[in-house]
This record gives sequence, C-alpha cells and structure tokens, in this order.
Amino acid sequence: MKQRRQIPLRSDIAWSTPDRISVFGYDLPQQLIGKVNLGDMGFLEIVGRLPTKAESNVFNALLVTLVEHGVTPSAIATRMTYAGAPEAMQAAVAAGLLGLGTVFVGTIEGTAQILSEAIPNPNAKVALPTLADKIVADHRQSRRSIPGIGHPIHKPVDPRVPRLFSVARANGFGGPYIKLMQLVAKKAEAAYERNLPINATGAIGAICCELGLPWQVCRGIGVMARAVGLVGHILEESRRPMALEIWHRTDAEASAHIRGQSRRRT
Amino acid sequence: MKQRRQIPLRSDIAWSTPDRISVFGYDLPQQLIGKVNLGDMGFLEIVGRLPTKAESNVFNALLVTLVEHGVTPSAIATRMTYAGAPEAMQAAVAAGLLGLGTVFVGTIEGTAQILSEAIPNPNAKVALPTLADKIVADHRQSRRSIPGIGHPIHKPVDPRVPRLFSVARANGFGGPYIKLMQLVAKKAEAAYERNLPINATGAIGAICCELGLPWQVCRGIGVMARAVGLVGHILEESRRPMALEIWHRTDAEASAHIRGQSRRRT
Amino acid sequence: MKQRRQIPLRSDIAWSTPDRISVFGYDLPQQLIGKVNLGDMGFLEIVGRLPTKAESNVFNALLVTLVEHGVTPSAIATRMTYAGAPEAMQAAVAAGLLGLGTVFVGTIEGTAQILSEAIPNPNAKVALPTLADKIVADHRQSRRSIPGIGHPIHKPVDPRVPRLFSVARANGFGGPYIKLMQLVAKKAEAAYERNLPINATGAIGAICCELGLPWQVCRGIGVMARAVGLVGHILEESRRPMALEIWHRTDAEASAHIRGQSRRRT
Amino acid sequence: MKQRRQIPLRSDIAWSTPDRISVFGYDLPQQLIGKVNLGDMGFLEIVGRLPTKAESNVFNALLVTLVEHGVTPSAIATRMTYAGAPEAMQAAVAAGLLGLGTVFVGTIEGTAQILSEAIPNPNAKVALPTLADKIVADHRQSRRSIPGIGHPIHKPVDPRVPRLFSVARANGFGGPYIKLMQLVAKKAEAAYERNLPINATGAIGAICCELGLPWQVCRGIGVMARAVGLVGHILEESRRPMALEIWHRTDAEASAHIRGQSRRRT
Repeated sequence: MKQRRQIPLRSDIAWSTPDRISVFGYDLPQQLIGKVNLGDMGFLEIVGRLPTKAESNVFNALLVTLVEHGVTPSAIATRMTYAGAPEAMQAAVAAGLLGLGTVFVGTIEGTAQILSEAIPNPNAKVALPTLADKIVADHRQSRRSIPGIGHPIHKPVDPRVPRLFSVARANGFGGPYIKLMQLVAKKAEAAYERNLPINATGAIGAICCELGLPWQVCRGIGVMARAVGLVGHILEESRRPMALEIWHRTDAEASAHIRGQSRRRT
Repeated sequence: MKQRRQIPLRSDIAWSTPDRISVFGYDLPQQLIGKVNLGDMGFLEIVGRLPTKAESNVFNALLVTLVEHGVTPSAIATRMTYAGAPEAMQAAVAAGLLGLGTVFVGTIEGTAQILSEAIPNPNAKVALPTLADKIVADHRQSRRSIPGIGHPIHKPVDPRVPRLFSVARANGFGGPYIKLMQLVAKKAEAAYERNLPINATGAIGAICCELGLPWQVCRGIGVMARAVGLVGHILEESRRPMALEIWHRTDAEASAHIRGQSRRRT
Repeated sequence: MKQRRQIPLRSDIAWSTPDRISVFGYDLPQQLIGKVNLGDMGFLEIVGRLPTKAESNVFNALLVTLVEHGVTPSAIATRMTYAGAPEAMQAAVAAGLLGLGTVFVGTIEGTAQILSEAIPNPNAKVALPTLADKIVADHRQSRRSIPGIGHPIHKPVDPRVPRLFSVARANGFGGPYIKLMQLVAKKAEAAYERNLPINATGAIGAICCELGLPWQVCRGIGVMARAVGLVGHILEESRRPMALEIWHRTDAEASAHIRGQSRRRT
Repeated sequence: MKQRRQIPLRSDIAWSTPDRISVFGYDLPQQLIGKVNLGDMGFLEIVGRLPTKAESNVFNALLVTLVEHGVTPSAIATRMTYAGAPEAMQAAVAAGLLGLGTVFVGTIEGTAQILSEAIPNPNAKVALPTLADKIVADHRQSRRSIPGIGHPIHKPVDPRVPRLFSVARANGFGGPYIKLMQLVAKKAEAAYERNLPINATGAIGAICCELGLPWQVCRGIGVMARAVGLVGHILEESRRPMALEIWHRTDAEASAHIRGQSRRRT
C-alpha cells in the first residue's frame, strides 16, 4: 500500500477566505444573497451558472410542483422520526427524503433517461412517432412499466401536467422532449387499453430534458423540493401531533390476530 | 388496550382529488406552479401563507446564504455515501443533512430562541443594552457559548452578515432583534476580549425573529438550503470523484501506527 | 489558511494488509469469525477487548431486549421508506434508526449519566437512599422527568426489567447502580404518587453502569439492537405490505376537514 | 376516494400486553433475554424461529465478518455527522449505513440472487461446472461484473473467505452454493485472465444460500453488522476526533486551484 499514488482532490464549487465566499465563481454576499431565489441556487448547483429569467421560471416551477402532496409516506416517516427525536429536526427531514427512490420520485430520472437517450441532440430532425412506438414496444416486450405515466389518484389528467407544460412553453422550452413524452403516453394508452396520463414526475423529467439537465441528477429536483415541504410537516407535528396515534392504531390492529398467542408455554 | 380512545388525525397542509391539489388553501397548479419560487414555498410551509414581495426577498436571502460552503463535513458525508450507493442519490443528500445539528446549523435555532425570548413582543419598548448585558452575563455565568457569534475562518467580519442585515433593512425588517444581536456581539467581544463577530447563523436567527418565524423551526431553513447544495456535490462527485481518495488516504494514515501489530499470536 | 498545522489522523480500531485484517488487535479471520457472536463484537467496539463469558451474557441480554417491540414508530418509518425505495434497504433501516432520540431510546443515556455521576466510583461506600432522594428532588425542582422510569403500556412492572436484573445478578453484575435505580423508582413513586416502574431503558442504563460502559455511548446499544430488528420489518413489508394502506387511511382522514376548500377561487 | 376498501393491517412479528412481550411467538423476557445472543435475534428476524446451534455459529460468523473494516467511507460519513450533531448519535450511525449500497455491501445480495436462481433446489442433482460457465458467460456478454469476486486490497486470497467456508463446513453448511461460487471465481479468473478471488461479500452471499435465507434480505446482514461497528467509530471520534481535520485538509486542497478567482468583478 505504500506505493499508492495520491490523486489530487479537486472541487470547482466554492472557496472561502476570511472576507470572501465564492460559489461557482459568484461572490456569495454581493452577487447571490438578496439577488436570487432558492430555486435559482438549485439551478446553479446543477448547471454551474445562474439561470436566465425564463430558465428560473421553469426550474422553479418544477421544484414548486414537488414540495408538497399532503401526508405522504415521506411525511409519515418524517413525523414518526420527529416523535422520537424532536431535538434533531434534520434527522426527521432526512428520514422523509430516504424514501424518494424508484417508486415515488425516481421516475423523474427514468423518464429523463429514456427521453434524452431517444433524442441525444434536441436540434436534430427526428421522427417522434417512431421513437414513441419504439419506447412503448421495448417496455412492453421486457415487461417493464414506462416511467412517468399513470397515477393512482390523478386521472384522467394529472392537473399539474398541463400547467407545467404551459409554463415550459410560455418560457420557450416547448421542444421535442415534451412532444415525445405526450406521444409515449398516447401510444401507451392505446397499447395497454387503459388510462395512462403523464404524471407530474413524467412531465418534470421531460422538462428537465428541455432545460438540458443531465438525467443522472434529475431525482435531485424531487429531493430539493421535498426537503422544503417536510419542514412544514415537522412544524405541524410539533403543534398537532399524529405520529403516536398512527402508531397505536397500527400496532393494535396489526397484532390483534396473534395477541396472547405463544409458541410454547414458558 | 381495547378501551383506548382514538384521537382524530388532522392536517391542515394539503388535500387532493382526482383533478385538484390544494396546498395551504392555494390551488397548486393554478396559484403556485409558475407563479412562486422554491423559497416562497418554504415560507408557505412555515407561515401558512405566501410571503409578500419584501418577505420573499428576505426569506430567500436567508436560504441562499446557507446553500453552499464548499467541501464541508456535510458534503463529505454526502460524497462518501454516494460512492457506496450511487443508485440512491436521496440517501446521499440525507446523509449530508444529518450532521446539521447543534454544532454547525442548530445555532440558528439557539440564536432565534434567545432573541425571541428576550423580546417576546417586537413592538414593546425595551432597553436593548440591558437585555444584551443580561444575555452575555447569563452565558458567561453558566459557561455556555453564545450561539450565533464567532467563526473559525470569517473574521473580523463574516462577509455574509452585513449583506444579510442590509437586505433585511432594505425590505423593512431592520427591527429590534437585529439591533439586539449586534449589541450582544459587541458586549461579548468586550467581555471575552476577543474577536466574536456575528456569524451567518447568528444573522439568520435574528432575521427569522424579524420575520416572526417560530424559533423551533429555524433550523429547518438550514436544512432546506443545504439539501439544495448537496445535490451539486453529488453531481460533481459523479464526474470527478474524491470520496475513495479521501478514504484511502485517511485509512492509510490513521492505521499506520498499529499496522502489523497484533494482540497476540494466532 | 496556508499556515494551518496538520493534526495527525489516528484510529486504533483496525488495520488491513492484503492477507490480514486486524480489529482491536484481534486477527479477524482467526480470532473472531466463528469464535464470537455479534453482541460480543458490540462489546469489543465499545470496550476495546472481547467480553468475558459473564460480560457477554449480560451485554447480549441488553441488546436482545431492544431488538424488537412490534410496529413501533421506528418500524413504521422503515416501512414507509421501503415502500418508496425498495432497492435501498439500507436507507429503510437508517430511517427507522433516526427516531431513536431523547423520547424513545435516549433515556438509556440519561439514566446511565445520572447513575454514573451519582456514583463515580462503584467500589466506594455511598449512602444510596440519600443519593436517590437527591436525584428525585433535583428533577422535581427543575421539572424534568426522571429518565428510565414510567411506561405507557408496561405497568405496574415492565416485564423485561426483573429479567434483566436477574441476568445481571446471576453473572456477577448486581452492584450499586441497579440498587440506586431501584431506590430512585421507589422514591419517585412516593413523591409523584403514581406508578413509575423502572422501564427497559432504565434497567439497561443501570446495567451499562455495572459493566463500566461510558454513558456517552449507551444510546448506541439501542441503535445496534434496533438495526437488527428493522431488517425483519423490511422482510415482512416486502411480503405483506402495510405502508401504503397506512398512508391512504391517514391522508384521507387527516385532510377530510379541508377537502374541497380553497383559500380563494382561481 | 370514499369507496376505497380498507386492507387489514397485519404483522406476525410481535405483540405486547401490560405484563408480556412476545416476539415471533417467543416470550421476550423468559425465552430470549439472557438466553440468546444478538446474532440469533437477527436470524429470528429473518427466518421467524431461533437458529440451531450450528445455524447460530454460521450466522454469527457472517455478521462478525462485516462489523469492522477500519476507517471506511461509512465510518467517515458517520464521523462527519457526529462532528456536526454529537447530540444525535443515532443519526451518525444512520449516515454511515446509507452508503451500504450496490458498490460496497449490496454485492451480498447480487451473489445470493445469482446462486439461488442457478440452484433453486439445493437437493436436486445439478451440473455445477455448467452452471458456473453459464454465469460467467452471461456476465461477460452483458458486460456486467460478477458480484462477489475481486477485491482492491485482499489478494490473491481474501483472508476472511477460507475461514468463512471452513466455519460453514464445520457446521454442516458446505453445500452446492459454496461449490458453485468457487467454480464461478475459478472460471472467471480463467476467462478474464486476472486475479478474481471470492471476496467476503461473495462468501457471505453463498453461505446465506446454504442457510436458506431469501436473497432479497441478504444486504440486511451487512446493515446489522455495520450498525454495530459504527458505534465504535463514534466513541473513538468523541475521544480522538479526526472529522474536522479531514474537512480542513480536503477543503483546502480541493479549492486551491480556484481560490481567489471570480467569475466577474463585483
């Protein structure tokens, strides 16, 4: 192990001296604090520069969409954690973020990957209906569900989706990825013969592609947004708790069928 | 346990139907998406209504301040986690949030608590110098450090602080909590005979009080902000990794003094 | 920052070479694998040497006590997380651990601190009743609850406690800390005029003191144990899920009083 | 949503009454505390019954193997978190667990899946060399690495592996899965023409199959084990810290190339 050659550590994100802090080349106090909003900072972290006004509008719209959806599994995990460790609010937020995986938010990632791989160059001429047919056929053949379509509650239309597409278009981001996503949903509905509307994460994945964001980081948009929302659930839990009540009800019902039973006498 | 009376579960945050989503009484698609930014959603989660323009400016300034400070312990925890589980980016962000406790960000909470308890009613006449003297004396007597003052790098002035106070004042939030915080720092410097500038979390704690936010939730501002910043570190780690190099260097140095030693022959 | 002097990094825990791994001076393959159990490894991590047979019996008993208590808030947080990210089981366990704070498991820490500070030297002659009176009086005066006594379900006796004390005594660890804890509970019941049995974390805190463990790390016993138990909940959730059902019931009930209401027409 | 039919909540794991606690049908105080060790509880959580003596030996050996491997990325994440939130030790352990994903410990899962799918019935006659050839060929063709073989440090033999196999055999668990794993490694070394020893997670995955554990939960063995080890790192960090030193060194080196640079004058 002695001979291991050191690889230099290198980060382009920020530097500090006693009187200055620089973030992606911007002077934090003078060029960012009081000048941009939190969503713009998210864009800066992903793209490495501040957004234009149009990009800011669209990127913030994506984030705003995912901040809050009521007492979700995430919010319940956060509230359960807060009930046990109210002195560590950061842990309660973290617990709620941990479930943002392939089932609930990772679909942004899946959608963005499919669309960006289908159209590597947004300026090239492509036959969108052919691409959509291929995406649906590939998923049917391998029996994988298509990420970004279908919703258990919001049908026949997820109300967030037309609004997101309208904001994107109004700001100049109504390009081929949105159109391809719409074709995929339409063709999937025909192929599977059931209601499969584009859902919020599908629309967000498509708009991420319009903004040119790398698909690998798109789940991060959901994570940023939900961290904001979970703080609200902590505040409400501190004022009007529900975690312990959910616990007591669940435990009583779940163990009722075995209560009093033993494997053998002691 | 049979007789336990159920307590109703109740949340005022949001509701959904197939075609609508409402968040704190606002129609999410029509009144929030495309109309407000991510920081405004954070204000909404804490206060229960959208901010005024002035409140939005100030609240976003607080958030923007804490998004990024380079390769911090938080960022290192995030990068270490991502190296082991790149398929679960949400876990890497969560790992980085978990250290936002009493040492690094919880001081927002401490500052806001001290200031809001010293001035329960911001409109009442109070003798600020007397309050500041009492805060410093109380902490000296019980040998606790005063949260929100002192910084290992940024001295004699934390460059974020004058900017934050200036943004607050320019938006009409230059009230007694900021003044009290400034007096506390001044009197602490005299009492301890060393440089104890207000640091970023101290300024943020004071401005939270100006905005009327409950001190119990102020740590959440740091959590919201840092969740945004950590996504940027994940993206950079995916492109130019440093986690494994830090690991190899650390492990080699830390165990050099015992390498080859055994408790006893086997 | 140039002049900062490096502090050497140093860990006494383990080292590896291509053909050897040493943990606290023991050869991992030859002296630990196949020779000791998981609980003994926990003792090794805290004390730095393997336990005697008696210490192993007692330490494993502490751990076994806290592995499982049904569908607790921890288990619910784990199940909620698994429902969203089944591909990242480690995140589901982590979510369940995050709530082991001052309310549910941190009381081990509190108990161990009070007892070890009351009796710094277990071999010295002390007046246990006087110490117990002082502990109860101090907590009453400052209106803090005494950690380690009282339980919402298990009364008038927590069935784990007599068993734990019996195991400790049978292995030679029935010293002054257990006696002091028993006196504290008895005197607290008299002072507060209600049933305040020693609970499991109280008994564990006292036995940790008998074993000579530092109180600062006693919460770790609960964390080790619960990590084991939460894996069982993940397996059951994968086979017979309850997370989504809890979610749907909770969300429906919690938002019923506002469903359909809007702040204003859109 | 009114018509949603409730699905009953049901867990077979545990139940409590004021004077009893039952875990998988065992009376916790009378049949588990003081009678079994922590590893046995892990077996109980996964299999639903206590292990035989032979099963206990082998299962504990698997767990003991993964408790500790020095200052790993997991341990660094834990130490970074503890530095920021020393009051919430459970969060520091959780942070260290979060990185146990597909890169570092998830390979147990992958190995167990491949082996158990190759030999669905351990008692059936199978041509092991043919199965091994197919596994290597399939992975070569799809350019995926074979989980459970190869190690950056431990070569030509991972010292934990022969010991694990020896413990398994001595306890009657030296069946076809171990043999198949050995053939896979041998054939992979031939095919790739380089050193590809079975590593610890490969051996553990194979032995999990010998024990009849479902592959879906095998990562949990690593999670249980590492939770124990991380508590030791927290204790050492509290006594001889390294987190802040790693931070300062890393930040200084990583930002040296941009320090002082700005995007534009302010």
